[in-house]
Amino acid sequence: MNLSPVTLPQLTRAEAPLTLAIEALDEHGHACDLSIPAERALTVYVDKQELITLMTLGAHPEWLVLGYLRNQRLVERVDQIESITVDWDAGDAGAGVAAVKTRGLNTDWAERTQSRIVTTGCGQGSLFGCAMEDLSQVRLPDTHLSQARLYEVLAQVRRQESTYKSAGSVHGCALFDGTELLLFVEDVGRHNAIDSIAGWLWMQTAGAQPKDPLFYTTGRLTSEMVLKAAQMGVPLVVSRSGITQMGFELAQSLGVCAVGRALNRHFFCYTARHRFISQAHLALASSPGAA
Amino acid sequence: MNLSPVTLPQLTRAEAPLTLAIEALDEHGHACDLSIPAERALTVYVDKQELITLMTLGAHPEWLVLGYLRNQRLVERVDQIESITVDWDAGDAGAGVAAVKTRGLNTDWAERTQSRIVTTGCGQGSLFGCAMEDLSQVRLPDTHLSQARLYEVLAQVRRQESTYKSAGSVHGCALFDGTELLLFVEDVGRHNAIDSIAGWLWMQTAGAQPKDPLFYTTGRLTSEMVLKAAQMGVPLVVSRSGITQMGFELAQSLGVCAVGRALNRHFFCYTARHRFISQAHLALASSPGAA
Repeated sequence: MNLSPVTLPQLTRAEAPLTLAIEALDEHGHACDLSIPAERALTVYVDKQELITLMTLGAHPEWLVLGYLRNQRLVERVDQIESITVDWDAGDAGAGVAAVKTRGLNTDWAERTQSRIVTTGCGQGSLFGCAMEDLSQVRLPDTHLSQARLYEVLAQVRRQESTYKSAGSVHGCALFDGTELLLFVEDVGRHNAIDSIAGWLWMQTAGAQPKDPLFYTTGRLTSEMVLKAAQMGVPLVVSRSGITQMGFELAQSLGVCAVGRALNRHFFCYTARHRFISQAHLALASSPGAA
Repeated sequence: MNLSPVTLPQLTRAEAPLTLAIEALDEHGHACDLSIPAERALTVYVDKQELITLMTLGAHPEWLVLGYLRNQRLVERVDQIESITVDWDAGDAGAGVAAVKTRGLNTDWAERTQSRIVTTGCGQGSLFGCAMEDLSQVRLPDTHLSQARLYEVLAQVRRQESTYKSAGSVHGCALFDGTELLLFVEDVGRHNAIDSIAGWLWMQTAGAQPKDPLFYTTGRLTSEMVLKAAQMGVPLVVSRSGITQMGFELAQSLGVCAVGRALNRHFFCYTARHRFISQAHLALASSPGAA
């Protein structure tokens, strides 16, 4: 029995190197071998109309495009997309191409993407006009975050971040269900990382949707990050960085529990404290490096 | 005698608080008073046509709008702009409004902004299609960066960063002439910070243009940051963070000397080493904290 009546799109699994080896000169005048993250242009065509060019690390281009279309609210349901085909060698001047085929959506994409907000976020940083309008439709599950769970989540994140560890200069995002890590995505832009997670989530059958979702990001909690998490139905967001005023106010009004500066045993719970279960004795436990 | 024959635009000097005081819960279960950076929506109208909404800290909204128009190549010369009037209380839902009046440009802005690249950068992260096309026109001055100058620049940056120091979660950018700090700008998005610098630079008379410009940013050196620096005629870029592959390749091909991971005495010179004057003995000097 198939739990999901939805026909999922066909996705390629295009691959490309995520780091580049370079030589740099250090402060001692020595040549050093370094690894830096890739940054690739990916031009998105929807039904042969050029939509946008995203700059990405390239780890999960199909999920990225899918999540971009979802988070920008350009496509309403995942089954309206028939396929996403990524070819890293197809574009001009080294750009990759993502060809999205819809199931007959017949949209004038240029018109749809007219009104836009250019946001503060690292990464793609673009939200189309309607995104802020129907926030009232956001319904978040009534879940909680205990300090013990927070620490377990942070310990799992520390075991990830492979491109960051090898090359730096990328942002990581992760989606948890309870304390189970469902997906960890890195990208040169953190909005690409969260969009990739949104795309992946769209591809999961109804039965595989997280019951107790938590979103982690290495990047700041700006308005856009909080908004995108809420749009995915995630009421708990955790960041290694801080929060901005609009991220704070949006989290407050949506009832999203926003936790920032979360590193080792330290954190600040900024909003929706009714969702947070403080366990102060755990703050004094032994170094989490061993976790 | 006026050195500049250019009629500069009239700019307001709109002000708004840059930080917000909030209370958060820490890991010990204590309520803490924190300061977080503002993040404001600023909707830009050009000749009464809505162009875009930028999310900004709000420190220098007029320079930001001016630099945005410049860096997106939407306006060619600064004297084509008659005035920029910012009113933080004029928009819907708490958004500010920047009203740009041109000297009769008669442009269809919606059409001009059709093709765009959504970039990796923190911050506004949007470049319109033509920006990458005429890089061949970029001419950079034949200047050099000594290790001593680099350390002096870093020491001056350490004395700045006021919103960052008080509230975190903002990016800083600075423009130097030699070792003289001309301008330090912070914003929630680093592209806003560099755009504000580009706007400020456009407002300077010919005689006040830097002879030996250097651009510093706390953010990563992505393609867009390198591109914007080069478009401002700046051949030396320094970052506290790292570099991405496209930032690296772009800096290489433009002959921009890109220096990253620059903190205290450490750094990597990634590109255009012929511009860099290594002084390895300085790496062993006493702690720069005292500088």
